[in-house]
Amino acid sequence: MLLLIPGPVQTRAETRAAMAQDIAPWDLGFRAVYAGIRDDVRRIAGGVEGVHATLPLQGCGHFIMEAAIRTFVPVTGKLLIAHNGSYADRAVRLATEAGRQVVTLPGPDTRPVTAEEIGAALAADPGITHVAIVHHETGSGIVNDPEVIGPVVRAAGRRLILDSVSAFGALPVNLAAHPEVDVVLFTSGKCLEGLPGIGFAVARIDSVLAAAGNAGSWSFDLSDVYQHALRAGWGSFRFTPPVQALAAFRVALDAFAQEGGQPARLARYRENCRVLYDGVKALGLTPYLEPRHQGPVIVTVHQPADPAFVLQGFVDALKARGVLISNFHNTKAPSFRVGCVGAITPEDMRGAVAAIGGALDDLGVRRREAA
Amino acid sequence: MLLLIPGPVQTRAETRAAMAQDIAPWDLGFRAVYAGIRDDVRRIAGGVEGVHATLPLQGCGHFIMEAAIRTFVPVTGKLLIAHNGSYADRAVRLATEAGRQVVTLPGPDTRPVTAEEIGAALAADPGITHVAIVHHETGSGIVNDPEVIGPVVRAAGRRLILDSVSAFGALPVNLAAHPEVDVVLFTSGKCLEGLPGIGFAVARIDSVLAAAGNAGSWSFDLSDVYQHALRAGWGSFRFTPPVQALAAFRVALDAFAQEGGQPARLARYRENCRVLYDGVKALGLTPYLEPRHQGPVIVTVHQPADPAFVLQGFVDALKARGVLISNFHNTKAPSFRVGCVGAITPEDMRGAVAAIGGALDDLGVRRREAA
Repeated sequence: MLLLIPGPVQTRAETRAAMAQDIAPWDLGFRAVYAGIRDDVRRIAGGVEGVHATLPLQGCGHFIMEAAIRTFVPVTGKLLIAHNGSYADRAVRLATEAGRQVVTLPGPDTRPVTAEEIGAALAADPGITHVAIVHHETGSGIVNDPEVIGPVVRAAGRRLILDSVSAFGALPVNLAAHPEVDVVLFTSGKCLEGLPGIGFAVARIDSVLAAAGNAGSWSFDLSDVYQHALRAGWGSFRFTPPVQALAAFRVALDAFAQEGGQPARLARYRENCRVLYDGVKALGLTPYLEPRHQGPVIVTVHQPADPAFVLQGFVDALKARGVLISNFHNTKAPSFRVGCVGAITPEDMRGAVAAIGGALDDLGVRRREAA
Repeated sequence: MLLLIPGPVQTRAETRAAMAQDIAPWDLGFRAVYAGIRDDVRRIAGGVEGVHATLPLQGCGHFIMEAAIRTFVPVTGKLLIAHNGSYADRAVRLATEAGRQVVTLPGPDTRPVTAEEIGAALAADPGITHVAIVHHETGSGIVNDPEVIGPVVRAAGRRLILDSVSAFGALPVNLAAHPEVDVVLFTSGKCLEGLPGIGFAVARIDSVLAAAGNAGSWSFDLSDVYQHALRAGWGSFRFTPPVQALAAFRVALDAFAQEGGQPARLARYRENCRVLYDGVKALGLTPYLEPRHQGPVIVTVHQPADPAFVLQGFVDALKARGVLISNFHNTKAPSFRVGCVGAITPEDMRGAVAAIGGALDDLGVRRREAA
């Protein structure tokens, strides 16, 4: 079975094999592994030792995003969220339920937010203290580029929270060049090709120190994660971790380095994406995004106009052909989505395109253009 | 290596083998597995279909405890915490940082809280709405018995939160007979002998419905976990789960049933504990608890008076002999602790006692009574 969901991704056999062991998380032997992971993650984020720190948290992307919002945005602050996709919806809800004041900047889920839009929103509301963008929007596949947005936030004297959950490791992040970024977030089961269970924040230490007392939640206080590291060491996880996922993540990071790091991974994913995008077009389907807005992580495709197309039936037919995709969609218009990330190759994507064509035939879907 | 920490515990080979697979969490095939886990967990808690629901949450014990406090104790409520150990410390801090009003009932970490103490505290403060107790205190090894405390809480018309993280599956929980219990909590990596990564709440549905809007956190809102199940089905996990830990938990639940369920598991752990308790006494060591207060999950032992005893050195010497224990202590007086839980037998415990004796000899510890 080929797993083509945008996380948890298909992993290498040696990565998932590391899950099948009992480990004492606070054992001195394992502490070195964990401390090494933190160093490697900071380096992948372009972070600087003594300036940035890796702050992990058990759980999922929602949890690390809520923790970042609670930690860095005080209750007296105001958070601008570029609202152009379903993971921006998530940020809005997480911040609002945490009692933070939110301003949304609405946009279509078919293109990135622009520097001009962010600049205008910041100029219009001097009360805004922080901006949050979703780096890669797992709803549609667009990329909100921190290289474009960051300078505007910096020039306006505001702070940036970068939700890079489904992009980190593939799209470049260079914290050293972006002092406006308080924190970048991601999870273990996406583009670094580990197994799910752990969120990571890489944060500016000065911002973390200034954020003490903001969170209103011990569990989600990243400043306490930092203080725990100072007290107990960088090899000590705060609270019981899903330690097998950490062990597997170590293996995944080694494979990442061996592949050539972020540039090599991005190149492979881009080629996966190109094969898929061109392939579904050749099948007569309509990609959700224009090529210039298509990121390398997922390809979303408009559901075909033919009434013979039913999403779960299509997913089942694909599964019978050995390809597993998401059985829901998060775009404004009905779509299906196929992941380009994980331990998969362009050859796998050619197989996936053939399977998609076969599954459409199985269902008798002839009118394949967008509904 | 024999893992004798009170979670993550030593698991069976077939349980941890289930970790080494890629799984799509929302795939229809996996939904049935997850829905089955929720049913089985409710039954183990003595819950009644239609009255109680299993509400899982990614992460660790701290997270499911914070979620329970936020969900069931409104900000206008007041929480009494039986404060007799380090996991009660945890509950106090979680509740306080979440902005809940807390009243503590202090007690020594060497005996359970009594019904009389709880009754007097409730009588003294009519403003108290909820009571939280730690079922098994992983700091010292004592058991705060909900069979003893529950009736007092019920008679006083208050609600009970039962932190059973390190006891559930071993010590009996019978929700059907305890309508005063809003929720019982546990995690995947303790007495049910799964791998870490998931917390579980089994809660009264009427209480969950009444708790809507309390949490002040989307991530930690158990009423939203319930609403998600109603909307998306009992086989749909809210947010990306550590799905490998779920798959392994299924295997662990099957082994639990095959062993004979909670009574059989408790009997094995009691015998593990007896061998260990008697064994360390025979070595000249001083157990932390009197026999009548000794629970079946961990045995804590006073650190020997001999200055040759250093905890990390002792842990290292034990590890060299194939036994891994915690390298910290959570008791008021210095101790070391040895777990009796997990896929381990009385024969393993006899080996552990021999290893403890050997490690003490390695360090040259001769004065073994309490410091």
